[in-house]
Amino acid sequence: MLDEKERENHMCKRVLITVVMLVVLCVITVAGTLAEKSEPISLPESLDTQRVTQVAVVVRDVEKVAKAWADLFGVEVPKSSLTDPPEKAHTTYLGKPTKGRAKLVFFKLENLQLELIEPVGGPSTWREFLETNGEGVHHIAFAVKGTDKYVAMLEKKGMPLVQRGEWTAYTGGCYTYFDSVQKLGVALELLENY
Amino acid sequence: MLDEKERENHMCKRVLITVVMLVVLCVITVAGTLAEKSEPISLPESLDTQRVTQVAVVVRDVEKVAKAWADLFGVEVPKSSLTDPPEKAHTTYLGKPTKGRAKLVFFKLENLQLELIEPVGGPSTWREFLETNGEGVHHIAFAVKGTDKYVAMLEKKGMPLVQRGEWTAYTGGCYTYFDSVQKLGVALELLENY
Repeated sequence: MLDEKERENHMCKRVLITVVMLVVLCVITVAGTLAEKSEPISLPESLDTQRVTQVAVVVRDVEKVAKAWADLFGVEVPKSSLTDPPEKAHTTYLGKPTKGRAKLVFFKLENLQLELIEPVGGPSTWREFLETNGEGVHHIAFAVKGTDKYVAMLEKKGMPLVQRGEWTAYTGGCYTYFDSVQKLGVALELLENY
Repeated sequence: MLDEKERENHMCKRVLITVVMLVVLCVITVAGTLAEKSEPISLPESLDTQRVTQVAVVVRDVEKVAKAWADLFGVEVPKSSLTDPPEKAHTTYLGKPTKGRAKLVFFKLENLQLELIEPVGGPSTWREFLETNGEGVHHIAFAVKGTDKYVAMLEKKGMPLVQRGEWTAYTGGCYTYFDSVQKLGVALELLENY
């Protein structure tokens, strides 16, 4: 009798412990879900950099304009390069894959990079800028780590993503452009080196 | 007799020295004039800086746009200021005095100044830009010493002066804007602190 009672007791305790553990697990899960719902992603409130890494000018003939800048600075004309093809760059423009590419020339100035961009190929924010505004400064760029959280932050601030793409040169990286002209007077670009 | 001969000799030497000195002086003057004629002003061949000190955005409502930038950077909204009145700024636009002024907000970023410009008053390169292009980057600026020689250099390179003016704040200084969009894709500004 005693043995059976002890066994029952033991069984009871085990069941109790399991139930308590399950309840605790449930509470943790529910609390976690609620916390996640109230702070969907931990969004940054602002950019964590105030360093303009790039000023970029969209032009019709990148070789010609590069020559004029080189003459202004008294330096050699830097070689132009082409953005990666769509299958490597995974470029999207207004949410859809695009064959838009660009011929680029970079001047490494003292405190930032001057980028000259000649749109080639399919639709892109560069081509759209050139067709709407003519030649001019297309964007200013900031370097970030964790592009996605800044995409979410900027969309929340009313500056939606317009174009994104990747590059394979050096360590590789990705760029994102935002429709921020109405808010800031100029398009923003975020650059992330992987 | 000897004394007189010596005196004559002495006189002769003096005259000779004077003549030689005059000839040397003439040669120096003529050489100087010729040199000046072959190099009318000693024009620089290029800018002697590759540091972009300012990126400037022309906007319709400087207070509103300043608020958006301050929010982006997580900083206080800087106070706006007004360019000096024409009688102090001696502003000229396309070669003629103008009453054009601007309401300015400056963000002192890590590596350059971000300037927001709202055109007010009479005609100006800022107003013309806003009317033609809408909001956008109006110019990028470089700091120089000896504005006039760079004005001559840029005009020689096909980038004529568009607007100039002065400011009295701090140590005072002058700015010059150039029509360089066709050559460089963007307007240049030269800034000189006195």
